[in-house]
Amino acid sequence: MSLGFTVTHADGAARCGRMTTPHGEVETPAFMPVGTQGAVKGVTHRDLESIGAQILLSNTYHLYLRPGDDLIARLGGLHKFIGWTRPILTDSGGYQVFSLAERHTIDEEGAHFRSHLDGAAHLLTPEKAADIQAQLGSDIAMVLDECLAHPATADGRALARRSMERTLRWARRARERFLALREGGVPGVVVCNRGQAQFGIVQGSIYPDLREESARETVAIGFEAYAIGGLSVGEPADVMYDIVGRTAPLLPADRPRYLMGTGTPLDLVESVARGIDLFDCVLPTRNARNGQLFTSAGRLNIKNTRYADDDRPPDPDCGCYTCRTCSRAYLRHLFATGEINAATLNTLHNLTFYLDTLRRIRDAITFRRFESFRLALHQSLSRQPHDS
Amino acid sequence: MSLGFTVTHADGAARCGRMTTPHGEVETPAFMPVGTQGAVKGVTHRDLESIGAQILLSNTYHLYLRPGDDLIARLGGLHKFIGWTRPILTDSGGYQVFSLAERHTIDEEGAHFRSHLDGAAHLLTPEKAADIQAQLGSDIAMVLDECLAHPATADGRALARRSMERTLRWARRARERFLALREGGVPGVVVCNRGQAQFGIVQGSIYPDLREESARETVAIGFEAYAIGGLSVGEPADVMYDIVGRTAPLLPADRPRYLMGTGTPLDLVESVARGIDLFDCVLPTRNARNGQLFTSAGRLNIKNTRYADDDRPPDPDCGCYTCRTCSRAYLRHLFATGEINAATLNTLHNLTFYLDTLRRIRDAITFRRFESFRLALHQSLSRQPHDS
Repeated sequence: MSLGFTVTHADGAARCGRMTTPHGEVETPAFMPVGTQGAVKGVTHRDLESIGAQILLSNTYHLYLRPGDDLIARLGGLHKFIGWTRPILTDSGGYQVFSLAERHTIDEEGAHFRSHLDGAAHLLTPEKAADIQAQLGSDIAMVLDECLAHPATADGRALARRSMERTLRWARRARERFLALREGGVPGVVVCNRGQAQFGIVQGSIYPDLREESARETVAIGFEAYAIGGLSVGEPADVMYDIVGRTAPLLPADRPRYLMGTGTPLDLVESVARGIDLFDCVLPTRNARNGQLFTSAGRLNIKNTRYADDDRPPDPDCGCYTCRTCSRAYLRHLFATGEINAATLNTLHNLTFYLDTLRRIRDAITFRRFESFRLALHQSLSRQPHDS
Repeated sequence: MSLGFTVTHADGAARCGRMTTPHGEVETPAFMPVGTQGAVKGVTHRDLESIGAQILLSNTYHLYLRPGDDLIARLGGLHKFIGWTRPILTDSGGYQVFSLAERHTIDEEGAHFRSHLDGAAHLLTPEKAADIQAQLGSDIAMVLDECLAHPATADGRALARRSMERTLRWARRARERFLALREGGVPGVVVCNRGQAQFGIVQGSIYPDLREESARETVAIGFEAYAIGGLSVGEPADVMYDIVGRTAPLLPADRPRYLMGTGTPLDLVESVARGIDLFDCVLPTRNARNGQLFTSAGRLNIKNTRYADDDRPPDPDCGCYTCRTCSRAYLRHLFATGEINAATLNTLHNLTFYLDTLRRIRDAITFRRFESFRLALHQSLSRQPHDS
């Protein structure tokens, strides 16, 4: 199988593992920084490597529109194009169609949308999403799914069922196309990574029975591994934890489990506690650019005037470049004056905080003290936040 | 004397030297990257150090307005505030008042202006410029001078004389204040760097006799070293080279000579040929952010569609991180999609190109082959540019 996975340690439902891809190994639980357009905003690849990023997530929607998967394939695939030698996971593009594209409509065929850049009409089908990702040559490709917003409406359940069933039909089409691509049977599509794996996605919103049906049917299709989608879309945290806790055990224990688009540091530890192995989220990078730092004593908003002459590092417990060399006063100055370096330095810190948190989670599991680590993290992060 | 300088090698009028400051040595001829607000836009200090930046220039006008020199002094001075341990030169703030501030007027007292940020009224006098720089604690402070645009008008000569004479009177006031500060005799001003040096500035526009008079009188005041100001303001390159060639020999040979705000790579080598030791310029950093790369085969505009699938590095002769890991196609993609990383990667390259050029100039002087180096540089840089 193109994707190797070995569980090396377990502590309750939490587990450590080693995932092997054509571009190297990933120690799990792992957090994937988001490099939307083939770059993590403000941070170079070498800086990402230096802080221990093992795998990058990149967005199919953006790369399909610019510079285009044909161009990337001509240049040898995404790894070569962006100069990143470690594993890459690409999403299907669906989420961005739903959240960014203009006037999109979904039908059985796929997602019809207009580019948010030039208004041009496009159609993203399960097959097309597989083709694009084949041309990108990522190590892990995701199936096209339909991702509903949190259904607060009265007919939420019916909507969720219809959407989940469509996602299943799309998953079957996506898998069929993926296998055809692997066998080289799709003319005009360059398969840039013969070892690419494809993950299925469990949907079903906040309804346990729909999640169970989705998990059972998705696993029946047979993917290299499975993701839980459609969470972190507005539902309360305890609802998310509950759904994760019910869904993860329904996914094969010998395959990595990926919780898409989540979350805060507490979301990560709570999801690991329920058996999740992979995460991605824009929170650490996007919040960094907005001046919000994650620290071991809660969140710190660097814009706050109280930091104007605060010569302490953002997080005295952090060993990142930013915390070793920059004061809160300097970071506030850079942010207030609109310097690019504010984004770079804040992002370096936030990603270090996330990657360090995952490293500590792995250590805690390995030494079978995950529960005490989880409690300690809750206590430290729920301390009176810096800015209250 | 607070500023040490030893000429170690000479080849014609070009020379290599070692300048010692309270924060370490600088090998000359040297190029100072511009860190306007206490940061070189897009590049961290460690990256600057890794590419061999020996000394940083920072802008008094910007730091005075935000975060303010009082705050920086409270935090121990500019080095400590920004976390840069090597030498820093600060300008006087005058140039930015003339180019950025709203509704500025100059009279004998100084420059009256309104902040470009909030419209608040300020007065920058020779004494105030010295005070601010004392509080910043830079290693080299510049006197406040009046910098005229290139005088294309009929009364250009009369204007240039009046301005040069005022600059001389201001220089005497600035030196007096600097000496008083050094002796601790200015209440309310914190002197953050007891070893700070102060450079005088020669003005006189494009008129050799005015330049000669300015040089003679400025040297008579007695500064740690001297700069040539008022060039690169719109005059033709050969006029600038002529003025530099006439003025440099009038400045003490045992002190570093600083040509302010210049210039292109060819400007640098031509000025070194005339005895200049120090340079600063926003060209490599500003052009990088606009997508223009300096390369050993001329300038390259990364926006050009011809680079869309060009998998070569920006400059095959360059060993910088950008050229080692990025193709023109990737850099064009990052620029076209507005990624911050375009600024970072382009700036890293352009600064490396400048710093490498200075390093090669120093080597050429040391081995007494400066003339052949100078000719070769002219030939390579005047080749058919990439984008024509």
